Parts: sequence; C-alpha cells; structure tokens
Amino acid sequence: MRVSFRSVLLASGFTVVLVVFGSVRLLGTPDKGRDADTRAINDVLSAQQSAWNRGDVDAFLVGYWRSPELTFSGSSGVSRGWDGVLARYKKSYPNHAAMGQLEFSDLEFRFLGPDAALVLGQWHLKRESGDIGGVFTLVWQKFPDGWKIIHDHTSAVGAKQ
Amino acid sequence: MRVSFRSVLLASGFTVVLVVFGSVRLLGTPDKGRDADTRAINDVLSAQQSAWNRGDVDAFLVGYWRSPELTFSGSSGVSRGWDGVLARYKKSYPNHAAMGQLEFSDLEFRFLGPDAALVLGQWHLKRESGDIGGVFTLVWQKFPDGWKIIHDHTSAVGAKQ
Repeated sequence: MRVSFRSVLLASGFTVVLVVFGSVRLLGTPDKGRDADTRAINDVLSAQQSAWNRGDVDAFLVGYWRSPELTFSGSSGVSRGWDGVLARYKKSYPNHAAMGQLEFSDLEFRFLGPDAALVLGQWHLKRESGDIGGVFTLVWQKFPDGWKIIHDHTSAVGAKQ
Repeated sequence: MRVSFRSVLLASGFTVVLVVFGSVRLLGTPDKGRDADTRAINDVLSAQQSAWNRGDVDAFLVGYWRSPELTFSGSSGVSRGWDGVLARYKKSYPNHAAMGQLEFSDLEFRFLGPDAALVLGQWHLKRESGDIGGVFTLVWQKFPDGWKIIHDHTSAVGAKQ
C-alpha cells in the first residue's frame, strides 16, 4: 500500500486534535454538551442556598431525592432517608441563628453518565456564634422531575467537629 | 372486555412480585445484574486494605485513578491528582505505626450507569496511639483496565479532627 505524504500529514493533524481535546477533558473543564444539565443543577443549589438563608430547612430539602434510599454522610455517620436527613438538619441547626448565612463556592461538575453527576464544592456558614465551613461531595441523579441529590457527604475543614 | 377471576389473580400476583422486588431494591441490596462489577470493586478494596496493613501506601494508591483529575476531599480540603493524593497520605501517615491496621465495613454499592458506581462505607484504624474511624464516599469509574476510584471523600466520626 502506497501512503502519500498528504495522508500522513492528515493523520498527524487528526492525532493532534485528539490529543488537544483529550487534554482539555483531563484539565477538568465542564463536560461538553452538558450545559443544560449543569445549569439545572446550579439552579437547585441556588434555590437551596436561598432557602437556607431565609431559615427554611424544609425548602432546602427539596433539592434532595425524596426517598428512603437518600443518604447523608457527615460528622455523626450516615443519616438515611429523606426524613432522617431532615431530622439531622433540624437537630444540628435548630433555629435561624444556628443556620446563619450559607455560601457555596468552588463548584466542580463531573457527569458520570446521562443521568448521573458528581458535584464537589466548598460550604461556608457565617454566624454570630462563629463561622464554620468545609467541603461537600454531592452525587446527583436525573429523575423525570429533574436533578436531585441522592447522596451528600459534607465535612468540616479547619475546625473541630 | 370480560376480565376473568384468573387474570385478576395473575395481575395481583404480578403486582405483589413487583412490590417485593421494589422493596428489596429500596432496602439497598446490591443492584441486580451487577454482581461481577460489585466483586471487582470489592477486590480493589480488599487489595487496598491488605496494602495498607503491610504499610505500603504506594500499593494502596493503585485503587485510585492515575490522573491529574483524581480528587480527595477530607479534613484538609481537596487534594488533587494522583501525586497530590499520594503526598497527602504520606504526610498524614508517615510510618507503619501511624497507619495502624485498617478495616473497611458496612459497604453499600449503588450503580449510577454502566461505568459508574457509588460506594459508601465505614473505615476504622486500630493504632497504639489511639483508634480513629469514620465514613467514606467513593465514586468509581470503569476503565479498560478495571474499576478505579475517581473521587474519595473521607471524614472522621466521633473524633476531633
């Protein structure tokens, strides 16, 4: 088989394109073609932040999967089910002063399939009794009524628990 | 349309079967048809436990995705990349005595798609200087060379950090 200089050049160019796209993926930019899903998840997180900051834990919980299979891993172990997670929040944050003002930052999105996503981020609570903050890992699933958190692992950084 | 008693009985039986299977699923047993994947992930975790218990952090790291995109969220925030995660482990556990004896327990598997899984569990370190333990969240991806941890969130329970 005769291979022309031109076809070798084309093949090399194609390889360069592949490598460049591969690098972009490796550098962790948001997955291409998932802009609508990223926006939808961002909207849930914004709604959670607003609900928290007006002291409404029940509205905050709307971002979570309403299921006995919902799990939350934190400083007291694993809480299970929508009711268990709600009870945990209400026990840890009994009133608006304890809840303080919540801010999420440094969000990172990774899509694990058409209906699953991983979101990492930082949380910060501004409170008169003392600020706290840390990191969270959220696993999301896309349901007919939208993206919901099916597992939350939240922990403190730089503070005694 | 005439509906016989027999067909009603059959339909009811079918409903009962669906409800029973639904309940089993809700109780968090391993996803059906994913036995081979569950075994493969279990094997990685067993190898990690053995590596840790002989003081071999490098072999422990084999369970993680060898990529700059690997992330580990813990008490000091987010560590990034295989090298960053390795450095964090070596700093936190400088010798075999600090590493102690590791035990994983209460593993829970959830498959998020053909190539993605979420595994929750508990970790316990038995050490002369004092035991510690807590919970972990592992996000796995299936690569051509097998299942690897792409994100780890590990935190302590019932201990000052």
